[in-house]
Amino acid sequence: MLAEIITIGDEILIGQIVDTNSAFISQQLNKIGVQVYQITSIQDDKQHILTALEEAKQRAQLVLVTGGLGPTKDDITKQCFCEFLGDTLVEDLPTLQHIKELFHTYFNKIPSQINLNQALVPSTATVLLNEHGTAPGMWMERDGVVFVSMPGVPYEMKSLLTNKVLPRVIDRFDRPFIYHKTLLTYGLGESTIAERIAHWEENLPPSIKLAYLPSFGRVRLRLSSKGKDQVKLMESVDSLMEELWKILEDIAVGYEDETSVVNRIGELLIKKGKTLSLAESCTGGAIAEEITQHAGVSSFYQGSIIPYATELKTSILGVSAETIKKHNVVSLQVAEAMATRSNLLFQSDYAIATTGIAGPDKGDGKDEVGTVCIAIAGPDGIVSEKFLFGKARERVIQKSVNKAFEMLLKEILKN
Amino acid sequence: MLAEIITIGDEILIGQIVDTNSAFISQQLNKIGVQVYQITSIQDDKQHILTALEEAKQRAQLVLVTGGLGPTKDDITKQCFCEFLGDTLVEDLPTLQHIKELFHTYFNKIPSQINLNQALVPSTATVLLNEHGTAPGMWMERDGVVFVSMPGVPYEMKSLLTNKVLPRVIDRFDRPFIYHKTLLTYGLGESTIAERIAHWEENLPPSIKLAYLPSFGRVRLRLSSKGKDQVKLMESVDSLMEELWKILEDIAVGYEDETSVVNRIGELLIKKGKTLSLAESCTGGAIAEEITQHAGVSSFYQGSIIPYATELKTSILGVSAETIKKHNVVSLQVAEAMATRSNLLFQSDYAIATTGIAGPDKGDGKDEVGTVCIAIAGPDGIVSEKFLFGKARERVIQKSVNKAFEMLLKEILKN
Repeated sequence: MLAEIITIGDEILIGQIVDTNSAFISQQLNKIGVQVYQITSIQDDKQHILTALEEAKQRAQLVLVTGGLGPTKDDITKQCFCEFLGDTLVEDLPTLQHIKELFHTYFNKIPSQINLNQALVPSTATVLLNEHGTAPGMWMERDGVVFVSMPGVPYEMKSLLTNKVLPRVIDRFDRPFIYHKTLLTYGLGESTIAERIAHWEENLPPSIKLAYLPSFGRVRLRLSSKGKDQVKLMESVDSLMEELWKILEDIAVGYEDETSVVNRIGELLIKKGKTLSLAESCTGGAIAEEITQHAGVSSFYQGSIIPYATELKTSILGVSAETIKKHNVVSLQVAEAMATRSNLLFQSDYAIATTGIAGPDKGDGKDEVGTVCIAIAGPDGIVSEKFLFGKARERVIQKSVNKAFEMLLKEILKN
Repeated sequence: MLAEIITIGDEILIGQIVDTNSAFISQQLNKIGVQVYQITSIQDDKQHILTALEEAKQRAQLVLVTGGLGPTKDDITKQCFCEFLGDTLVEDLPTLQHIKELFHTYFNKIPSQINLNQALVPSTATVLLNEHGTAPGMWMERDGVVFVSMPGVPYEMKSLLTNKVLPRVIDRFDRPFIYHKTLLTYGLGESTIAERIAHWEENLPPSIKLAYLPSFGRVRLRLSSKGKDQVKLMESVDSLMEELWKILEDIAVGYEDETSVVNRIGELLIKKGKTLSLAESCTGGAIAEEITQHAGVSSFYQGSIIPYATELKTSILGVSAETIKKHNVVSLQVAEAMATRSNLLFQSDYAIATTGIAGPDKGDGKDEVGTVCIAIAGPDGIVSEKFLFGKARERVIQKSVNKAFEMLLKEILKN
């Protein structure tokens, strides 16, 4: 059972937007045992769209298409499907009614003709009502292959896929069970890990695939398998993962499908009844942003201070001006003082503090770009470390965020 | 002159990572007049890779491939290129030396055999040294089509593309000039804009293409054109854009190629010698993170406070507990007080404050999920507004961020 994804839109091919839809769709399909064979991004061009549909039909039983359903002239996906299916557009009354209601509720006005045209669908399509927008989803078939057209706006697509498309895919197709399990590690490089686990890797059964996924100082190791017997499959992957965990115990963080580092931190803090605050200088809110992406963090997360200007480390956080002058603003001493003061200010149990030079300029400090000091203050005292994360701003910030969470997790686990 | 991008890696097709490389490569190619015809994401599978290379060769003159160059067993891109080109792997001495140096500098150890194997390249490939990693880039040819293989790690790929690949593409290919200009608007929907500009759109010359790009309450309007005569091309797009700006003057923010809203805010603040601080509750650091993504913000950005827990709005920011009790924590009054206090705390001229319910839970407030109050305090006083941004957490946060920057920009422009 293979699926393909086709994303339509010139904005993808000129690099104006990053296609995040494909990753979401792939994840969701994988969970229900549908393997994505290929993802193809193409232009808003009739011939290109028709060719892509035809080619995907040769390879897959299910083709999910996003984009090109807007009300404006550059959107031609529906017209292409009509040509592909030998069909014509007809008005779908429930969609028409839905468009009128949306306009009444949110804009208190009557939709124009180009909005009402979004209710036009190929006559043979099963219409999937889009609760969050005016362009409906469409479920179509040709020669036994299912084609689904969805809008490219991510939250509209996500809701349609989850609530309308996946249940129909589950009904319609006989699927194997696909199982992935990913171990998150930190502190060692890809090749060093490969050497350490070489013997274990050589003895993997051919039905189980191992992949190395390196990213900013972390390596994720993913085992994948698929088959009919769900229980047996899970048992064999789980037991291999346990072996792997033992070999890599000192660098293992957790299994990614169950938990991210932030989730694990949250679970542990809630369990222990402890709270967290942040004092972010060079990371400038990136740690806070990663925490607040998760729902439910208000149970342990008190808040953050971002004293971007040096003098604010003194005036708000209360780090002594003398410490800054003596040790330099990018120093273990300042990071430690920031973390300690953050716990006082926010009345928290644990605090992360960062101070460094994200670049591209050196700023007024004497350290080179990429120098970052991170401190964790907690019930067991303070730990701090100085890093050199390279020259690229984005990389310096992301590596700092990852490292900060890892240091915090270690501290929490001590107790 | 058409190019294609092929990204290789199972992690893309199971949705474990979002492919951000393709957008970067497309942007860069576009700038030098190379149009990307198709982006194809495929698995680490020999037959699939060979088929994708063959198909891309039929359509394009330049094929950029990322991924599958790691030192581990799941990476097979080099082997596939050998088969595709009828070539064999040979050791590249400069790469070998580079790998040894990298290991010495960063790990103070001798590389293992699997690391040294990264110096193996197809014998006919021109090797492009990867300064930031061990896997080199490779420039290869077959039947007049150029194939470039690069690692999938984003910062390694970016550096290789910018410094090694693009200069060679410019040398090798005769390219037209491609010109895009994008107008950023806010506050009106796609179809309302389409109606307003219908007459202007109908009179666009066929050589110039208009696209609507909606995202979280903003619509970007992009004009694209390509040809040989750079001056004429830019003149005609620029003059059409000026017409468009006039029609949409009340909702136009700026041209995206030149400026983002944050950049525009930064430029204006620096010019006026004013500073900014943030008091983010429901956005939890997302505004700070967007600001600090830009280099050079320390010239105007003082810092932020994220009083996630309600009591911190009083204890740190100094919003009176009575105001919170009387008006509710999600209220215009509290947002306004937060913004005013933020200016005091950070000694800044302008402050943005957000308070709301990002969801998915309602929290302890009486407002429904998606309710957000935003206030801007500045030299001209305080403005605030209450919004309802829907039920999806990610969307609530992103819409709040966009709206906050727009409100701030308006205030700065008043003066």
